[in-house]
Amino acid sequence: MSDFVQSLERGLAVIRAFDADHPEMTLSDVARVTGLTRAAARRFLLTLVDLGYMRTDGRMFMLRPKVLELGYSYLSSLGLPDVAQPHLEKLALEVHESCSVSVLDGSDIVYVARVPTKRIMKVMIEIGTRFPAHATSMGRVMLAAQDNMDFLDTPLPALTDRTITDPVELKAELVRVRAQGWSMVDEELEHGLRSIAAPIRNKGKVIGALNISTHVSRPIDSVHTELVPPLLTTAEAISRDLPS
Amino acid sequence: MSDFVQSLERGLAVIRAFDADHPEMTLSDVARVTGLTRAAARRFLLTLVDLGYMRTDGRMFMLRPKVLELGYSYLSSLGLPDVAQPHLEKLALEVHESCSVSVLDGSDIVYVARVPTKRIMKVMIEIGTRFPAHATSMGRVMLAAQDNMDFLDTPLPALTDRTITDPVELKAELVRVRAQGWSMVDEELEHGLRSIAAPIRNKGKVIGALNISTHVSRPIDSVHTELVPPLLTTAEAISRDLPS
Repeated sequence: MSDFVQSLERGLAVIRAFDADHPEMTLSDVARVTGLTRAAARRFLLTLVDLGYMRTDGRMFMLRPKVLELGYSYLSSLGLPDVAQPHLEKLALEVHESCSVSVLDGSDIVYVARVPTKRIMKVMIEIGTRFPAHATSMGRVMLAAQDNMDFLDTPLPALTDRTITDPVELKAELVRVRAQGWSMVDEELEHGLRSIAAPIRNKGKVIGALNISTHVSRPIDSVHTELVPPLLTTAEAISRDLPS
Repeated sequence: MSDFVQSLERGLAVIRAFDADHPEMTLSDVARVTGLTRAAARRFLLTLVDLGYMRTDGRMFMLRPKVLELGYSYLSSLGLPDVAQPHLEKLALEVHESCSVSVLDGSDIVYVARVPTKRIMKVMIEIGTRFPAHATSMGRVMLAAQDNMDFLDTPLPALTDRTITDPVELKAELVRVRAQGWSMVDEELEHGLRSIAAPIRNKGKVIGALNISTHVSRPIDSVHTELVPPLLTTAEAISRDLPS
């Protein structure tokens, strides 16, 4: 396609080549990881150094904090995280459980705000983390709001032995969730994890979801009486605070 | 410079053109904000749509969550945030004040991890936020570790009427901080804000800083007896946990 700017694709691939396993790389490392020639890798690395996104000691290259500002262009343009954050903190304090906000991106949910508690086990979820929407409580309230559910006709992957993988069964569950106004998912994403979610609306349209995640050892009765009411109240408060 | 890839610079500028004030833009908006021709803006926007970083309804363009992954390349390659987070949560719970970790980037500090408390006033500091190093407690412990302080010879901006702006005076304070092993900054960044910080070391080298921020209404005695000891203990614990 003639409108495609390959240099931009390659430059972004050079940024993404760096991670926990590759915090510092030589020119040869970057060329190998990205599949670029050494000459091309060198031009992209030097351009990123020049723009302040990367630094080098002459041999090793590493990312600089300015790269964070790219990610924050998205969070800032979304608006939702800033509005949701104080509500999440109040909710987490009230229910003593971790609370999160996510948006739907294709068939995934992506976390855009989160307040963890000490109670949660090993789960350490960061902003930007993705999960398959069909296996999460937040994904279900957002999928339930879609007019057309044909996109669910492909096979759904199982994340535990409890994940709903049958599209027909999932659609029935989404219809139920839509009528109920909130969803619960029990160990379908991860063993031991139970989560409830409610939709966040802007001008009547579902644009995100709020959840409370807890351990399955918490009795279902207590989820209904102690967690669902503050979940719904908080989701409505966030929806009201969004710029219209 | 022949090694400079202008397409990469322009593509990154298109991403950064989106923010809270410009969450959605038309092709013409993007051309105007970035100074690109409409033809060039169109090529960059369509490339970003193609790569999954942006979506469009045919008229308006907006960023997609994949942009977050660019920012997380940096956080992940740094390693420090993941190691520091559980220590920050423990410390914030113990001292009931907000705690943060930052790194030095030029003459700025950049927040890379943070646990807020309800106690803190209006300050809502996000990951990626920058402050001038000379006016912050974290900046001072990191500046104090530099062998060469000549970079402080330029005039220092005042953020409040209490900010140290005289390079000679600041150097004397940095020498004191270096000997003491921690720093305190009182309303030099913002009125009402008092902050203490200690260095985080990897293989003996200062690579970041940990702080506790509090209100000036907390007596100085209580800062010395209740906040400084857990600050130093936690900074050492994070340093010990870093991969060597």
